[in-house]
Amino acid sequence: MHEVDRRRQALESALAAGAGGVLASHAPDVRWLTGFTGSSGAVAIAPAPLKRGSRSAPRAVLLTDGRYTEQAKVEAPGLKIVIERKAPATLAAAWLSLQGVTKAAYDSAQTTVAQLEAMKLAVPGNIRRSFFAAQPGLVARLREVKDAPEIVRMRKAAALGCRLFDSILPQIVPGVPEAEIALALEVEARRSGAEAMSFETIVASGPRSSRPHHRAGVDKLPKRGFVTLDFGVILGGYCSDMTRTVHLGKASQRERDVYHSVLEAQQAAVRAVRPGVTCGEVDEAAREVLRRAKLAKAFSHSTGHGVGLEIHEGPRIATGQKQELQPGMVITIEPGAYLAGEFGVRIEDMVLVTESGHEVLTEASPKAWIEL
Amino acid sequence: MHEVDRRRQALESALAAGAGGVLASHAPDVRWLTGFTGSSGAVAIAPAPLKRGSRSAPRAVLLTDGRYTEQAKVEAPGLKIVIERKAPATLAAAWLSLQGVTKAAYDSAQTTVAQLEAMKLAVPGNIRRSFFAAQPGLVARLREVKDAPEIVRMRKAAALGCRLFDSILPQIVPGVPEAEIALALEVEARRSGAEAMSFETIVASGPRSSRPHHRAGVDKLPKRGFVTLDFGVILGGYCSDMTRTVHLGKASQRERDVYHSVLEAQQAAVRAVRPGVTCGEVDEAAREVLRRAKLAKAFSHSTGHGVGLEIHEGPRIATGQKQELQPGMVITIEPGAYLAGEFGVRIEDMVLVTESGHEVLTEASPKAWIEL
Repeated sequence: MHEVDRRRQALESALAAGAGGVLASHAPDVRWLTGFTGSSGAVAIAPAPLKRGSRSAPRAVLLTDGRYTEQAKVEAPGLKIVIERKAPATLAAAWLSLQGVTKAAYDSAQTTVAQLEAMKLAVPGNIRRSFFAAQPGLVARLREVKDAPEIVRMRKAAALGCRLFDSILPQIVPGVPEAEIALALEVEARRSGAEAMSFETIVASGPRSSRPHHRAGVDKLPKRGFVTLDFGVILGGYCSDMTRTVHLGKASQRERDVYHSVLEAQQAAVRAVRPGVTCGEVDEAAREVLRRAKLAKAFSHSTGHGVGLEIHEGPRIATGQKQELQPGMVITIEPGAYLAGEFGVRIEDMVLVTESGHEVLTEASPKAWIEL
Repeated sequence: MHEVDRRRQALESALAAGAGGVLASHAPDVRWLTGFTGSSGAVAIAPAPLKRGSRSAPRAVLLTDGRYTEQAKVEAPGLKIVIERKAPATLAAAWLSLQGVTKAAYDSAQTTVAQLEAMKLAVPGNIRRSFFAAQPGLVARLREVKDAPEIVRMRKAAALGCRLFDSILPQIVPGVPEAEIALALEVEARRSGAEAMSFETIVASGPRSSRPHHRAGVDKLPKRGFVTLDFGVILGGYCSDMTRTVHLGKASQRERDVYHSVLEAQQAAVRAVRPGVTCGEVDEAAREVLRRAKLAKAFSHSTGHGVGLEIHEGPRIATGQKQELQPGMVITIEPGAYLAGEFGVRIEDMVLVTESGHEVLTEASPKAWIEL
């Protein structure tokens, strides 16, 4: 069975019996369920009629517009394809109601109020009010657990990230503008086959390293100080995400101490990753180390997030999160410490949850102290 | 008065009297109304109390989270800033109801069903049902007409696009992979100050030029055939968008004929641009030329779209669109002809609607036949 067929079956199984049809139109969800990579499309799955205890395969269609006729056929060969000018989600709703479906689950976290209005108008008036069942994260939750082909792709994306870090290290010298480092890294990524970067590359140097959301600017790398690189590629559709912080020139004892506290926190959180542990417990493992180092307040964000077809997916590795890790999840572990006006440090790996524990996908890049 | 204050005033004027407050959380809308460029924020505007015929300025706040405390202060100096961990739109709803507002307009085309649910929970139960007034395109419609500072920025973005085209022309030679051309153009864009590209650069050569949505791939530029470049930069927050099609090697009469038909169609549509003309009439001006050339079916998309902080904005320059052009709108005019398995041609300019007619912002790049 092809991976996308298995995923549609998993989606069906995840729905309560008798939930009716399914409608998905968020591009990464459509890609995950069909293989189609176009910017505009929807999947509709009509439940097969129940027949004496047996159940035939769900009848699924991919709905898109005329720009994607050829591409849809090539990328989603097993599926019936519907081409029309209307919004795909609206087409999907109309198609489901034509199949006799009277109820369909949709992702209310990925559907605008205006889209839902249009979808409602596409089904008969007498069932309009009860037709759409809001299920926030309907497909996104399933996507949190990666299947075997996805893990292969994520390994490749993570490995490319590590190679890029190696290739850029010699260019980290005082006087080079941050934006030049970012650009060099991105050029190398594209030359290495990446479709794009998974987010705007962060090169934060000197006092700017204390701003977790600083991008790469015109400012030049200092003679002395930290340089934080946070970047990711999209390779084969899947995102990588990693951060390393290196030091230019001779560091103060304070800088070394903070670096090692962040590293210790990061390693503690990585060690905590295994099936059944809650995301909150993983977050706490990092936070506890930084609390002991009197850096609790300097760690101003959460410890990590899921990553896959999108750069930010579930689960959230944050304070109090009760969700349990499952084998196949790929998450980031990225604690940091930011001392405003002074400096900041962040260290980030991509970590796969395995049956027995975890595997660090970005292990090829060293995290030990680097002084350049 | 600062540009963002004028815009918030324009928004207030555009609302019916007594419409109540306003809530906007789509990032380009927030940027347009406040100057804040963070990825997550909302604006809430409470109507000032009516006092004996006079009306004081609206009370506006910018709501975002702790990552953006410093940035919000710098970018939106005149505004009260609220920092909290919750979703900005939810915060905005709560803030409005605390001001005694009982009704607020929001953009239902930019708000998910789940976001609206969370917003509803943030206002008192007794007014929850009637509090939120759906207004699709609430701010987006105002953004269609650019003000003077925006036109300055769009001119600069368009001019950079033209310079990039000039700089890349010498590199368009047989045997170079399409992706290399795209990368060279993007590197030059970033070196010239662009924050990013406004969309994935299209380099479609030889038979691939017949696919309007082909990106740049590993295929090499042919010895003989068309090369279509469709690209845009983001400069100072504003997007450019232009397309030129050149020919490598000696062209056939058929290739020349199709090129000149597309050029004639493009020029006819540009000539049609002036205040009061409908978008459908501009589209028809292009379509009519291609119909006469027996290329009606080969022109498989609409003629253009608005452009600004986003690459695709209103108005839509498409068949039957009744919306009238207004001075200050910036639109693309980009007809094409695509002959599957053979070749394709597209020519695109950015056009500003002026009081007396129009001005082509990408005029510096020649559209006459180029054979390399």
